[in-house]
Amino acid sequence: MYIDTFPTAAATLPQMLSGNTALVIDVFRATSTMTTALANGASQILPAATVSEARQLAADLTPGSYLLGGERKAVLIPGFDLDNSPRAYGEDLVKAKTIVFTTSNGTKAIRRATTAQNLFLAAFLNARAAAKLAAETKRDVFLVCAGTNDKFSLDDAVCAGLLIEHLTSLKPRARLSDFSLALHQLYLAHRHKLAQLMAKASHHRRLLDLNLKDDITYCLQQDIFNLVPLWDGSKIISP
Amino acid sequence: MYIDTFPTAAATLPQMLSGNTALVIDVFRATSTMTTALANGASQILPAATVSEARQLAADLTPGSYLLGGERKAVLIPGFDLDNSPRAYGEDLVKAKTIVFTTSNGTKAIRRATTAQNLFLAAFLNARAAAKLAAETKRDVFLVCAGTNDKFSLDDAVCAGLLIEHLTSLKPRARLSDFSLALHQLYLAHRHKLAQLMAKASHHRRLLDLNLKDDITYCLQQDIFNLVPLWDGSKIISP
Repeated sequence: MYIDTFPTAAATLPQMLSGNTALVIDVFRATSTMTTALANGASQILPAATVSEARQLAADLTPGSYLLGGERKAVLIPGFDLDNSPRAYGEDLVKAKTIVFTTSNGTKAIRRATTAQNLFLAAFLNARAAAKLAAETKRDVFLVCAGTNDKFSLDDAVCAGLLIEHLTSLKPRARLSDFSLALHQLYLAHRHKLAQLMAKASHHRRLLDLNLKDDITYCLQQDIFNLVPLWDGSKIISP
Repeated sequence: MYIDTFPTAAATLPQMLSGNTALVIDVFRATSTMTTALANGASQILPAATVSEARQLAADLTPGSYLLGGERKAVLIPGFDLDNSPRAYGEDLVKAKTIVFTTSNGTKAIRRATTAQNLFLAAFLNARAAAKLAAETKRDVFLVCAGTNDKFSLDDAVCAGLLIEHLTSLKPRARLSDFSLALHQLYLAHRHKLAQLMAKASHHRRLLDLNLKDDITYCLQQDIFNLVPLWDGSKIISP
């Protein structure tokens, strides 16, 4: 098994994913939020690349059966039901609902990774389960960090390092690309002080400026879910 | 001062360098070799993007006044005088000579960075001097890692981490991009065991396969030169 990592959605090469397994990571907050929504009973998630595409997807659904969720510039999109806070996707709201979802980085990364044979969503919240599922595919694994506005984002990169730690524990003979190796070493060097490292990340600072400290704390919890969202060719579901 | 880092020549955004300072890094081996050539008395280096461009540049020079140097796939180019081994550029050969130079990654990175206000070449061999010169420009500093065939290369990335350590020592209030921060932390976590970390790099393994262990040992020496090659708009010279 070979493990490679893309630093951003824009840098992801869809042709390399063909026949392989992709783990899309957007810690703050898209993959954390989608994992939470499915864990709380949402029936499916339709990722849209743009706000207008999200509205078009919703127009074909029965009123009352869906919620519009996501963000632009980290805040609620006008006319949408939910923003991109995982804590907003409680069971009372999302159970049995379709979520039409668009975010600045995470949903773009998913759309770029749909060439993969297997496409799973990963975050700290489900890292161990996501790595296990990816290892079981017996394909090469590509970690697709969403990044922030086409820039490398420390939160996604450290989560990639954690996933590589789990993957190499499960598959000790896996070969790592240099970038995977660097992120693995970065994670190992900071595993007991992740919060301090994360506090230096630019995206982290931006969320703090928006009073979203509770979202950060929530998203940095490890393995509170065994659920790994998967793209089935047309939607994101719980396996 | 803001410090950002590009992972490869291809990922380098020339427009971001405009008005700023670029440090181009290709540890194995282009910037190590060019620094050595100038330290040994070469008068100037003309970086060519392609082999045919190198031959065209040479055709305009007086026979005997220049040497053709560089590599493709890490070995000597047919008809060239010198390969890309820094140990080949001894004073006996290069003194007062023009070096027309083309490599797979390093010279491409330089060509992509010529939009910078100040363009310097850096390697482990001259890291402290290169960081000092960059800090003195009082501009934002962009570390341009050449990478290997458009892939992130651990050797360049760790050298970037060392340069960031020197830069932040000189300018403690410098702001780091997330990628710069990650490489700085990677360097700090491995500063006392760099050789072991480097031994895992893919480029390192490839050079070993070519019996170039002595080049690796040479290129990983820190601060044996105070010379920092600079691009003056048409050629690379010693300041």
